[in-house]
Amino acid sequence: MSEALSDTALKQLFFDARTFNKFQPRPIDDATLHSLVDLMKWGPTSMNSQPARVVFVRSPEAKEKLKGALMGGNVDKTMAAPVTAIVAYDTEFHENLPTQFPAMPGARDMFHGNAGLIDTTGLRNSSLQGAYLILAARSLGLAAGPMSGFNNTAVDAAFFPDGKWKSNFLVNLGYGDASGNHPRGPRLPFHTMARIA
Amino acid sequence: MSEALSDTALKQLFFDARTFNKFQPRPIDDATLHSLVDLMKWGPTSMNSQPARVVFVRSPEAKEKLKGALMGGNVDKTMAAPVTAIVAYDTEFHENLPTQFPAMPGARDMFHGNAGLIDTTGLRNSSLQGAYLILAARSLGLAAGPMSGFNNTAVDAAFFPDGKWKSNFLVNLGYGDASGNHPRGPRLPFHTMARIA
Repeated sequence: MSEALSDTALKQLFFDARTFNKFQPRPIDDATLHSLVDLMKWGPTSMNSQPARVVFVRSPEAKEKLKGALMGGNVDKTMAAPVTAIVAYDTEFHENLPTQFPAMPGARDMFHGNAGLIDTTGLRNSSLQGAYLILAARSLGLAAGPMSGFNNTAVDAAFFPDGKWKSNFLVNLGYGDASGNHPRGPRLPFHTMARIA
Repeated sequence: MSEALSDTALKQLFFDARTFNKFQPRPIDDATLHSLVDLMKWGPTSMNSQPARVVFVRSPEAKEKLKGALMGGNVDKTMAAPVTAIVAYDTEFHENLPTQFPAMPGARDMFHGNAGLIDTTGLRNSSLQGAYLILAARSLGLAAGPMSGFNNTAVDAAFFPDGKWKSNFLVNLGYGDASGNHPRGPRLPFHTMARIA
């Protein structure tokens, strides 16, 4: 049976973890991005559908493509971040179900032509996978700065012109510089966010 | 600067983590459910909106209310699980923004009356928070079995009759019994799920 992780690990993942706006001037190399995906990919998704697709925006040219889609307050910190991950989902994720979820032979056909089910499943599960990415980054000693403040349509036009992938949210990634952190936001009390029935 | 977590921790969270279908006959006490929420609540959400609401279904009466909404294959394992968490979101989450995100005085009004934005933000961020719940459970040595195979409308009618909260997905929780695990599903290769730009 598993034991609880150490206090140090719980602090790094949750208790002391923060959204970072500033990063050290140290790049993230390809091997680290591969390690990140190798962790996040193991997080569970509905019917092992794995709809998330991630574009690690790192080159100046790709950053420039992203710039015009960002809300004003997010431009400078995103341009300065070593990497900005676009967490998206593939609207044709179900084409992989025959190999990814062979236990249910009809799984692909359940989604085929059902745009509502594709979008709900894609948004829900790529969000789960985006959260796995954030916590995988923290597990590797990286800092994350997730954002919804951007124009999804503009990002999709710039990065996914064939219309197959849809952006969900963005995550700045790097080695953290805590001097850019805002004061920590409060959290709702247990009785507001949970019930035991 | 943070270091990477130990191999043991990375295995417990990601590499060796599994979706559990069977649990030991050991209850989860109130203190553990509070510890779980105390971890998951620190995960980041858009504008600190924290839309997720969690009902920990533990009593036989509450389990019975859930039963009729489950897909056939999920009934027995869910009835047997020590706790089933309903991860939902509050469609009035924005009413808390004046206290939770004081940095942006107009945040509440941005959502007020905008059902589309409320639902997208609620689904995206309660999914993130549901993923934090899964990884918080693993961090505490608990096992998780998340599921989308149920009738959301029926769960909402049974548990949220006033219509304010909407169910997102379910997570069985307990101390794991690996004898109920299915063979592990494959994962997509890096070049299918990610790009470096």
